[in-house]
Amino acid sequence: MTTLAITGGTVLLPDATVTRADVLVDRSAGEILEIGDDLGADADETLDATESLVTPGFVNGHCHVAMTLLRGYADDKALDAWLREDIWPVEAELTADSVRAGTELGVLEMIKSGTTAFADMYFFVPTIADVVDEAGLRARLGHGVISVAKDEDEAREDAREGLAVAEEIDGMADGRISSAFMPHSLTTVDGQYLSEFVSEARELGVPLHYHANETEDEVTPIVEEHGVRPLAYAAEKGMLEPEDFIAHGVHVDESEIGLLAEAGTSVIHCPASNMKLASGMAPVERMREAGVTVGLGTDGAASNNDLSMLDEARDAAMLGKLAADDASAVPAEAVVDMLTGATADAIGLESGRLEAGAPADLAVIDLEKPHLTPAHDLVSHLAYAAAAADVRHTVCDGRVLMRDREVLTLDEAAVRDRAREEAAALVDRAES
Amino acid sequence: MTTLAITGGTVLLPDATVTRADVLVDRSAGEILEIGDDLGADADETLDATESLVTPGFVNGHCHVAMTLLRGYADDKALDAWLREDIWPVEAELTADSVRAGTELGVLEMIKSGTTAFADMYFFVPTIADVVDEAGLRARLGHGVISVAKDEDEAREDAREGLAVAEEIDGMADGRISSAFMPHSLTTVDGQYLSEFVSEARELGVPLHYHANETEDEVTPIVEEHGVRPLAYAAEKGMLEPEDFIAHGVHVDESEIGLLAEAGTSVIHCPASNMKLASGMAPVERMREAGVTVGLGTDGAASNNDLSMLDEARDAAMLGKLAADDASAVPAEAVVDMLTGATADAIGLESGRLEAGAPADLAVIDLEKPHLTPAHDLVSHLAYAAAAADVRHTVCDGRVLMRDREVLTLDEAAVRDRAREEAAALVDRAES
Repeated sequence: MTTLAITGGTVLLPDATVTRADVLVDRSAGEILEIGDDLGADADETLDATESLVTPGFVNGHCHVAMTLLRGYADDKALDAWLREDIWPVEAELTADSVRAGTELGVLEMIKSGTTAFADMYFFVPTIADVVDEAGLRARLGHGVISVAKDEDEAREDAREGLAVAEEIDGMADGRISSAFMPHSLTTVDGQYLSEFVSEARELGVPLHYHANETEDEVTPIVEEHGVRPLAYAAEKGMLEPEDFIAHGVHVDESEIGLLAEAGTSVIHCPASNMKLASGMAPVERMREAGVTVGLGTDGAASNNDLSMLDEARDAAMLGKLAADDASAVPAEAVVDMLTGATADAIGLESGRLEAGAPADLAVIDLEKPHLTPAHDLVSHLAYAAAAADVRHTVCDGRVLMRDREVLTLDEAAVRDRAREEAAALVDRAES
Repeated sequence: MTTLAITGGTVLLPDATVTRADVLVDRSAGEILEIGDDLGADADETLDATESLVTPGFVNGHCHVAMTLLRGYADDKALDAWLREDIWPVEAELTADSVRAGTELGVLEMIKSGTTAFADMYFFVPTIADVVDEAGLRARLGHGVISVAKDEDEAREDAREGLAVAEEIDGMADGRISSAFMPHSLTTVDGQYLSEFVSEARELGVPLHYHANETEDEVTPIVEEHGVRPLAYAAEKGMLEPEDFIAHGVHVDESEIGLLAEAGTSVIHCPASNMKLASGMAPVERMREAGVTVGLGTDGAASNNDLSMLDEARDAAMLGKLAADDASAVPAEAVVDMLTGATADAIGLESGRLEAGAPADLAVIDLEKPHLTPAHDLVSHLAYAAAAADVRHTVCDGRVLMRDREVLTLDEAAVRDRAREEAAALVDRAES
């Protein structure tokens, strides 16, 4: 056994209290051995955490990671027009090379902002899995299945690819990579394919992840065609199980909140994207009160426009209060839980809590910053004031991915160069 | 004449386009001499801006700067309870030393996040002016006048202090400091004092700055007592002039938007604070359409919880879309204007635009960051993706305040230490 010690810091515990302690990690098993005093003396490797907060690594519950290539490409448009006029035409030109470059850029940004695990729906998923493996993160990945604008053969082939990918990558990277079956949404995949392929996904034993109730435009057609709200329709299709997680859940009514709570299906809240696309305000406080596990995600960088979970946490706290018309809603402790353990629970990963036996996924935040001074309440600082650049070190599965802001598993300058080149080529193909 | 050249960067011009250019500054006059090619060769001092965006320094239109001492002290409460139960009892214990320490911390944070000018309402204003002078920023400062919970003599004395301070500090620091008369709000200052002292402020020739229409709780009592909406009441009191600027303007109706547009009075939008206190969504797009100058402010750090204007810009874009129910509302260009020139206009400072003859107030943003890659649109990046820590250099009035993240006018570690000590002592006094 070789060990890693994170020494001299203040540690955020699962009950949202903090304590001065060292963290000792079994590097081979990727697990936390102990949290306590003076654990650094015999460690094989040490990370300094003086004047720093040691937190669980952040968990991003909903992303389209390679969309970093389209960061700032098209802003200030509503979801439907933005997808149809800007995003989908460019995505039609994606290649494995562009997805590799965009994924490298995205995971680089994640590591630099303290994220150690994420759930992702995109294309060329084996390529994404390769990059995640090399970069050292933890992820639940899947192929975004769409049937609209496809004939039956194409639609079926796409769904089969979704299943094949889920089977192929599940358990990769010593178990750091898991999968899900990911129909894009309840309106972009025809009901016949949902009926057919969801049961096949169940046989594979993978969860489902899909967009639901993001805008009113996704609700109305389902109500009109099927006579029930979208999540009742999802339940009819067998798509509301405890291991499943939906993205957005903005326009959910009380009956749907009840369905989620009863089924144990989780919701990934994406406040920045919901605001930027003017999709609306998810009733986060109401869902939490009802017992729904609400996680947090950035969505893709094209509708955010960054992948920092600390930005997302601040957005969630603020938007949650506005949605509830109550400044005490979605308080700092709730948001810090959504940033870490709650999202790990939602996407079915063992991560997000610092305790003996847990995966050694953590971030170390430098507190010696003007905007983190004074330190009345470190949980408040994590929710409201800390920023991506305050992250000093990032550790996933017991491996140091970033030390003193230097990412060790990716060549940052090369990743940025490749992303620039691939983004330019991609847009050229789409616009020519 | 001695000169400063900012070389090799991409410059954000007043029309929201960008161009590769150097910026040459007359350090003695504190003015931009020229924006063009190859201006660095003979300069007395040079700042490198390669792979960087040179933007106008950010302008924070509404702050209570020394409230940095209360960052994270009390979160997740609505405005009225938060003020009465948490903030005011602590503020009652403020001393000149605590205000000095909190102001140093606040201006340190501003310089590190690219802010070069701000408007501020607080107490111990001559102390604040001293710190602003030393730190090298530009500011419009005033004493927050309150009459509630005061007898007539105390109320009058407070208003007189507001006037005396405005007269005393106006024009300080070679004109970098200007002043305003700042009644706290239309509900916390009794009408009799507004009638009496507003006209005295006009004789002094200083503008007015006050909170208005932040919550419904500020609207209802005025409607009940005076039979008109708050801004009609303000107009009756002579408080809506072109040089005046109100903070918040969340709960304004069409008639009030019309009054603002007609009067030429500006609004400082504080999206983070409005969300965090669940105050509501200001109709920013509607006000802009009506021709109202809408600036941007952080409010105090206790309700934000940082003073980064780049965070505020992102918040303004996002909340503006949600308020308008339109993803095209408050687009990136509008937000970048609010971050710079529009706020300078609102608070009556010549700043916020990079052009020959303008004050040399600017920030240089490092673009070599994962979250600013690729570079489809730098205006989008400034609105949605850039963060405080991306600011490399900050220049105000031709003087370099920060070079390569090192603040030259304040001792950062000493400022943080003093702020910690004064914050602890302040809270001790309030809680004992």
